[in-house]
Amino acid sequence: MRIADLSRESGVPIPTIKYYLREGLLPAGEATAPNQADYSAQHVRRLRLIRALADIGRLPLRDVRRVLDAVDDERLTTHEMRGIAHYTLGRVPEESATDPAMVAALAEVDTLVTELGWRVLPEAPARRSLAHALVTLRRLGRDADVRVFTRYARVADQLAAWEISRTATRPTRAEAVEAVVAGLVVFEPALVALRRLAQEHHSARLETPAAKRRPRGRRAVRR
Amino acid sequence: MRIADLSRESGVPIPTIKYYLREGLLPAGEATAPNQADYSAQHVRRLRLIRALADIGRLPLRDVRRVLDAVDDERLTTHEMRGIAHYTLGRVPEESATDPAMVAALAEVDTLVTELGWRVLPEAPARRSLAHALVTLRRLGRDADVRVFTRYARVADQLAAWEISRTATRPTRAEAVEAVVAGLVVFEPALVALRRLAQEHHSARLETPAAKRRPRGRRAVRR
Repeated sequence: MRIADLSRESGVPIPTIKYYLREGLLPAGEATAPNQADYSAQHVRRLRLIRALADIGRLPLRDVRRVLDAVDDERLTTHEMRGIAHYTLGRVPEESATDPAMVAALAEVDTLVTELGWRVLPEAPARRSLAHALVTLRRLGRDADVRVFTRYARVADQLAAWEISRTATRPTRAEAVEAVVAGLVVFEPALVALRRLAQEHHSARLETPAAKRRPRGRRAVRR
Repeated sequence: MRIADLSRESGVPIPTIKYYLREGLLPAGEATAPNQADYSAQHVRRLRLIRALADIGRLPLRDVRRVLDAVDDERLTTHEMRGIAHYTLGRVPEESATDPAMVAALAEVDTLVTELGWRVLPEAPARRSLAHALVTLRRLGRDADVRVFTRYARVADQLAAWEISRTATRPTRAEAVEAVVAGLVVFEPALVALRRLAQEHHSARLETPAAKRRPRGRRAVRR
């Protein structure tokens, strides 16, 4: 197809496509005439992945390139490639690494991860996110141990086992990376939103005045 | 105690305490002399709650006041009070309410919530968050039904039932609100971080090259 068809098919404007071509994010089409090239379904798929990473994953182009390089590097296993996408998309701001509360919390997170038997690289950004949550809990005045998160870890473990087994069957490398994008920008906020909705429901269930729950019964003594 | 002691005890600077007094967020102490007042443990607790909402929950003072008013209004049940804190802390930016994709997604979320049997107010901000996740999933090119979230909803349901039963025993209204703050600013990011760590672990488990898993066995044929 010509560049105009590629634009229509992918929904990406022609000037943007030309920019991606110049930057080397999108491979050149097959030259069919001095000023014309032919593009394939491969190009449509690559554009879709670039848009997922850049527009929806909000990655700067430098990071889009890093993920695309991982997709193209066939020496990397799907796990390694998924790891690069995951860490690039999930990067968290550096905390002041010298803050003693943060240093202590990070060591506790390492202990928890070891106790759980999880194989996670030392540089995983989510370790820092979890340590930060622990520091915040202590700032709230709670004298909390990292094991306050154990129940959440078990829930996360079961959920992730199911998610990974499901996405592991994605046929192409690009689709595996798109699943990482969806996991972070769709299913993560969805889980958070659903937990909030479920909390409201269970709070209501627990505390509905007895009078409302049993309209014909006597009024409960408790307010 | 005097204002200097109150400041030391709570960690809040005296000028900030005076500001909260002027704004009516903190009730006046008991006057003991023309220019002196006596503060109690009640004041320390209230300051702690204000800090939790303002510093850790990042609420503007107007919203802090709204939550404190709910804490003080004894006609509200704990559930109602918790709801005000939850909605105020969990507010999400208004999406363009006229975007047809968003309008459709919101209707689907309503259907899901009804199917789950959850009692959740129509104005719950998390409904919009979930609808937004669905719209994003479709922008990623997935032809997804809202039921793609059902498994997450079940996980959230079980987790929330446990969380609410645990925090329902908080003895005071202020502590119930502090638990809402912790739920949103600590346990929510913690759950997200743990899911990311667990995903890395399960991805590694699934795809470790056979040669590494069985160091003494023969190399697997698959890469």
